[in-house]
Amino acid sequence: MGRNVRVAVDAMGGDNAPGEIVKGALEALKASKDLTLVVVGQQKPLERELKKYQYDKSRVEVVFATEVIEMAEPPVVAIRKKKDSSICVGLNMVKQKKADAFVSSGSTGAVLAGGQLIVGRKKGVERPPLAPIVPTAAGPFLLIDCGANVDAKSSQLVQFAKMGAIYMECVAGVKNPRVGIVNIGAEDEKGNALVKETFPLLKQCTDLNFIGSVEARDIPYGVCDVAVCEAFVGNVILKLYEGTSAMFLQEVKKTFLSSLRTKAGAMLLKPALKQTLKKFDASRYGGAPMLGLNGLVYKMHGSAKAKEVRNSIIQCVNFTKQDMVEKIGEKIAASAKE
Amino acid sequence: MGRNVRVAVDAMGGDNAPGEIVKGALEALKASKDLTLVVVGQQKPLERELKKYQYDKSRVEVVFATEVIEMAEPPVVAIRKKKDSSICVGLNMVKQKKADAFVSSGSTGAVLAGGQLIVGRKKGVERPPLAPIVPTAAGPFLLIDCGANVDAKSSQLVQFAKMGAIYMECVAGVKNPRVGIVNIGAEDEKGNALVKETFPLLKQCTDLNFIGSVEARDIPYGVCDVAVCEAFVGNVILKLYEGTSAMFLQEVKKTFLSSLRTKAGAMLLKPALKQTLKKFDASRYGGAPMLGLNGLVYKMHGSAKAKEVRNSIIQCVNFTKQDMVEKIGEKIAASAKE
Repeated sequence: MGRNVRVAVDAMGGDNAPGEIVKGALEALKASKDLTLVVVGQQKPLERELKKYQYDKSRVEVVFATEVIEMAEPPVVAIRKKKDSSICVGLNMVKQKKADAFVSSGSTGAVLAGGQLIVGRKKGVERPPLAPIVPTAAGPFLLIDCGANVDAKSSQLVQFAKMGAIYMECVAGVKNPRVGIVNIGAEDEKGNALVKETFPLLKQCTDLNFIGSVEARDIPYGVCDVAVCEAFVGNVILKLYEGTSAMFLQEVKKTFLSSLRTKAGAMLLKPALKQTLKKFDASRYGGAPMLGLNGLVYKMHGSAKAKEVRNSIIQCVNFTKQDMVEKIGEKIAASAKE
Repeated sequence: MGRNVRVAVDAMGGDNAPGEIVKGALEALKASKDLTLVVVGQQKPLERELKKYQYDKSRVEVVFATEVIEMAEPPVVAIRKKKDSSICVGLNMVKQKKADAFVSSGSTGAVLAGGQLIVGRKKGVERPPLAPIVPTAAGPFLLIDCGANVDAKSSQLVQFAKMGAIYMECVAGVKNPRVGIVNIGAEDEKGNALVKETFPLLKQCTDLNFIGSVEARDIPYGVCDVAVCEAFVGNVILKLYEGTSAMFLQEVKKTFLSSLRTKAGAMLLKPALKQTLKKFDASRYGGAPMLGLNGLVYKMHGSAKAKEVRNSIIQCVNFTKQDMVEKIGEKIAASAKE
C-alpha cells in the first residue's frame, strides 16, 4: 500500500448531484486502495444516497454542509457569503490539509474563485490555470488554460506551459511532452500581440519540448500533448470541440433512425462505432485540475456522471502521490531564478 | 436581364489552380446570365485550361499576369513587389472599376493585405473583416471576423456586427438576422475585456437584432445568424470546426471499412448519410467576402474545387446586384453620425 490520499468530494454540485456523485465516488473507493473519501453535502440527501451502497465505512468520512452554491450565483459573492456551502467546506479542508484534493461538479466560477481565495496560489504562481485533458483521434492532450484567467500576460502563458508539461509527464505519463501554442498560422511571425510576445519566451525555455505554433484545425488530430492558450480562447476551443462532436453524433443518430434501411445498417455498425467513439469519451479522463494552488482543486463537467466522478477522483490520487503541488511549486520557483 | 456584373477570377491561386478554378468559373457563367468573367493568370496554363471547355466567349475576358504569389511569401512584401501577379492585377481591376469583384483561392494574407492596400477601405470603415458563411445543423451563419485584424477594438467589432447583419439580410436573405457576440458564458457580465466593452455598445444599437452572448458550445446548432468576434478567436472557431468535422468524418469512414459487417452496414447507410452531410458542405455557400472595401474582394478556401468557385462567383453577383458596397458604406456613415 502506498501513501493514503484524502479526497473531498462535493456531493451537491452539478446536474446529477448527489446520486451520480456518490455513486462515482464509491466506485473510486473500490478502485483505489489508498483512497479515503470525504463526502461533503447536506445531511438528508447525502445519507439517503450513501444508504444505497455497501462500502468500507472506515475509508469514508461524511462532512455536512448546510448550504449549496447555485450555478447562477456571482462566484466571488457566493464564496464569501455561503461559508457553510459544500464548495467552501471542501476547499477549507484542502486549505487546512485535512484533504489533499477537492473535486466538484458545481459552478465553475465558484470553484475557481474559491480555489484562489480559500486554498490560495503556490508562491510564485501568477495565475492558476484550469487544464482539462481532451480526447482526440490520436490520444488525449492537455488544454491549458480554460479557466477564468482571461486576458492573460505572456509570462503567465509561459507558466501555464511549464505546469502543463509537468502534469502530462508525471500524472499522464507522457515522456517529454510536446508543448504547442495555439495560433492562427504555422509560421513563427503569425499571431496576435499576446502570442507574438509569448512565442520567443517559450522558445527560450530549455526545460520545455516546445514545438511552436499549433493551428486549431490540427488540434483534433492530437498534434501536441500540451496546447497553451489564453483562457478565452481555451474556453472557446473546449466548448466548440465538445459542441461540434455532440452535434455530429446527434446528426448521425438521427440519420440512423431515419428509415428501416438505415436502422438495419446501424445495427451492423453499432459495435464498431461504439468502439470508435470510446476514444472520444472525455469521462475516461475525468475533469480538469486547477494547477498552481496550495493543494489540488479539481473541476468536473456540470453534467458529470459516475464514470467521470470515479476517474476524476483517481486522477486526484495520482496527482497527490506524484507530489504535484510541490513539483509545480519547485518548477515555478526555479523558473523565477533563471 | 438584370445589371451586368464583372467578376475577376484569380486562376493561379489555391491547391487546385488553374484546373478547378477555370472549371468552376465557367460553371458560374452558365448559371448566371448577368455575369461577365475576367479570368486572370499566366498565359500558358490559362489557355490550356480554357481550351477544354465550350463557353460563351463574348462573356469571358482573359487577362494575363506573369507572376504568381506563393503561399509562404510575406503578404505585404509580395503585394508590393509582384505588381504583375494575378492577385495584384485582379485587385487593381476592382480598384479601377473594371471589375465589380475579385475572387481568389490564393494566399489569405496576400488577398487581405492587397484588399486593403489596393482596393482600399470604404470611408469610415476602421477595418475590413473577412466573413465566411459557416454551415450548421440548423442552417448557415456568418462568422465575422476571421481575417487578419487580430487584437481588434470594440468599435471595430460593432462595425463588424453591422456589416455582417446587412450582408446576411441582403445577400443571404435572412430577415432581421440574430446577431450574437462569441463569449465564454451566457451571462451579460462574462467575457474578456474586449467582449465586456463591446457588449453594451451592441446592446445600444437600435438597428441590430442583438441577442447577446453566444457560447462556442451552441455555435454548431445555429443559435445566431451573425457571430461577432475578434479575428484570432474567429480563426480558431472556423478552423477547429472544420478540423473537428473532418476528423470525425475520417474516423467514421475508417470504422465503416473496418470489417465485412461494417461494410455491409455502411452500404445501407450511405445514401441517408450523404444527405445529412450535405448540410455541412461549406462549398455550397462559397468562400468568404472581405467587407467594407471600395469593391468586393472574395476569399475562397485554398482547397477550393469547382463547386466552391462556382458558388463564390454567384455570391459575388448577388453582392454586386444588391449594391452591397454602397449599402455598407451608408450604414457605417450613418452609424458615425449617431
